[in-house]
Amino acid sequence: MSSWERWFAEQRRAREAAGLQRVLHPKPVDEDVVDLAGNDYLSLSGHPEVRQAAAEAALRWGAGAGASRLVSGTTALHAELEGELAAFTGNQAALVFSTGYHANLSAVTALADRDALIVSDAHVHASLIDAARLSRAEVAVVGHNDVDAVRGALAGSGARRAIVLTESVFSVLGDAAPLDELAAACAEHDALLLVDEAHGIGVLGDGGRGLLHARGLAGGPHVVCTATLSKSLGAMGGAVLGSTGLIDHLVNRARPFIFDTGLAPAPTAGALAALRRLRAEPELAAHVHRRGAELADRLGVLRSAGAVLSVPMPSPRTALGAREAVREAGVRVGCFRPPSVPDGVSRLRITSRAGIDEQRWSRAVDVLADVIDEHRRTP
Amino acid sequence: MSSWERWFAEQRRAREAAGLQRVLHPKPVDEDVVDLAGNDYLSLSGHPEVRQAAAEAALRWGAGAGASRLVSGTTALHAELEGELAAFTGNQAALVFSTGYHANLSAVTALADRDALIVSDAHVHASLIDAARLSRAEVAVVGHNDVDAVRGALAGSGARRAIVLTESVFSVLGDAAPLDELAAACAEHDALLLVDEAHGIGVLGDGGRGLLHARGLAGGPHVVCTATLSKSLGAMGGAVLGSTGLIDHLVNRARPFIFDTGLAPAPTAGALAALRRLRAEPELAAHVHRRGAELADRLGVLRSAGAVLSVPMPSPRTALGAREAVREAGVRVGCFRPPSVPDGVSRLRITSRAGIDEQRWSRAVDVLADVIDEHRRTP
Repeated sequence: MSSWERWFAEQRRAREAAGLQRVLHPKPVDEDVVDLAGNDYLSLSGHPEVRQAAAEAALRWGAGAGASRLVSGTTALHAELEGELAAFTGNQAALVFSTGYHANLSAVTALADRDALIVSDAHVHASLIDAARLSRAEVAVVGHNDVDAVRGALAGSGARRAIVLTESVFSVLGDAAPLDELAAACAEHDALLLVDEAHGIGVLGDGGRGLLHARGLAGGPHVVCTATLSKSLGAMGGAVLGSTGLIDHLVNRARPFIFDTGLAPAPTAGALAALRRLRAEPELAAHVHRRGAELADRLGVLRSAGAVLSVPMPSPRTALGAREAVREAGVRVGCFRPPSVPDGVSRLRITSRAGIDEQRWSRAVDVLADVIDEHRRTP
Repeated sequence: MSSWERWFAEQRRAREAAGLQRVLHPKPVDEDVVDLAGNDYLSLSGHPEVRQAAAEAALRWGAGAGASRLVSGTTALHAELEGELAAFTGNQAALVFSTGYHANLSAVTALADRDALIVSDAHVHASLIDAARLSRAEVAVVGHNDVDAVRGALAGSGARRAIVLTESVFSVLGDAAPLDELAAACAEHDALLLVDEAHGIGVLGDGGRGLLHARGLAGGPHVVCTATLSKSLGAMGGAVLGSTGLIDHLVNRARPFIFDTGLAPAPTAGALAALRRLRAEPELAAHVHRRGAELADRLGVLRSAGAVLSVPMPSPRTALGAREAVREAGVRVGCFRPPSVPDGVSRLRITSRAGIDEQRWSRAVDVLADVIDEHRRTP
């Protein structure tokens, strides 16, 4: 056994001792479960029109894009999706990536270099943390949603280009960012506000146009939006939305765009069909909110800004126990325990979903209310 | 206009002045061109069985995986593909990622940290360069295929974990790495050899099992293989192949795996169908080589180790001119100019492809021979 294999084994034993070892659980296609752990908020991944559009694209275009977008991997499908995404969210232009991770890595590294300052909210997604590190810029991590701290950091940025990183709705706690104040601070200091709308598009704003659109900030001169195509839009991939100048800059400078094969035809067409579904059914976003509010009230927790409900639990053990118990009753929820929670509090992460029929949804709410109540009382 | 928009515009003008401005060219579905610029070496992206498998997966599973692989985004399709990929390449286990970039970022950052040493070949792909940077390890860049330099760097690594990064076939020049010697050096120093087989799988080794397999190194105790599903396998995505201990380590530790939505059903099934096609037609790999040798001989350049033929041109202008001229004759090839070539020499990048009918291939070879010869003589 090489020293590497010994190291893997030691690390595994340490994880097992701490109750942190994770394994993959492949699911069958006919799994009978109400999935409130994933991010398919509008259930569009499985919508007949979306499935059909993805399937037709695979038949017409093939299984892959075949090359980098800059070589020969840009199809008319990509252009169509980019045009409609930009128009829907109120931006001049859009660029589609293979993943949301690629979108964030690309936007941040193409905008910030060694000479720039990045001011990052403490709760941003791993992809933004990695992006900031990769850029080699100086990184100032500020307290969650602390606008004064952002202002303070920007005041010290001097003549450097400065970028503020945040999310419209945060993935773990489900709370929203104070976008108006952050945008004002950025405009004042000629900094750029980069907002990850991964959990905002499809859920917040007029018909799901996102929180930037709702606040009248979309397409503003100091705002860049990133998004995913794998959550409300039910497929896979990411996007950056902003000015044509920004998008041209990314096409030419973003290594994780340039040196990556284009998003495959099926998810590209799937995301496009989901976007059209969302435009045709603007009430989908409101439906997620109504269900989220109903569930929050039943569980006696704060309502979420978006689709993600964060339910604090007394201990890692009770959180895990509740997750297993609801799973046995046919409902899947997520579970966060230290060290992957920003404040050390174990919690269940439950996503509100449109597109599940009323009876299944009601039964899931009953299961959650009963099980969580029981596990809270026996810590 | 904000200072950001002015900066984008200035950068664009500088690129335009240097002849380096790049724009995207969306292609129609019925484009009549022989594409020798992309990486669909075996033409499996458009194979009827591969298209069909991708389409059926979209219909059965939906357009997206819906969540991170660790939450609820692992389907039976992922597990099936991972099992068959591992068996095909001679490894214990495999892990599938959304992109090859994710695979490389994940492998390197999960194996190397601040206390490790990374020894990187000067010609490795952007994703490995970014991965090394992201890991925060000390990085020693050594000359291309310089085994003595690798040995020297490893000798100075002391007690640190050390990882050597290389590719089996390099993307730009099309040459192969001295894997035997590199593996011996790594074994001697208890270092890990990470080999990116993006351009090796499907092209090199017995029936396309890759160069590690051909050298009897696949699955060895000091070897990690990364690969893409977007080149010979015609879809999109990436993979890491190695021991079960390694894969377990990645599942638990690799942030670009953990915090990413799973690869969508259609490309997962497309890659699986392509792999089965490749197993059923082991002569595909040899076909690429025969065509590559034919083309190299006609053009009077060195034969390639894989599918990528590198054709040096007298100047950036003649390289561009030749690319445009063959494009007008219905053939697409790639073009590398400074600063994106490791040695400052402008070149055409032409990929040899199986799966194009003999008549179209022969015509393409004639076009390339005529046009390139002409452009070489008028610098």
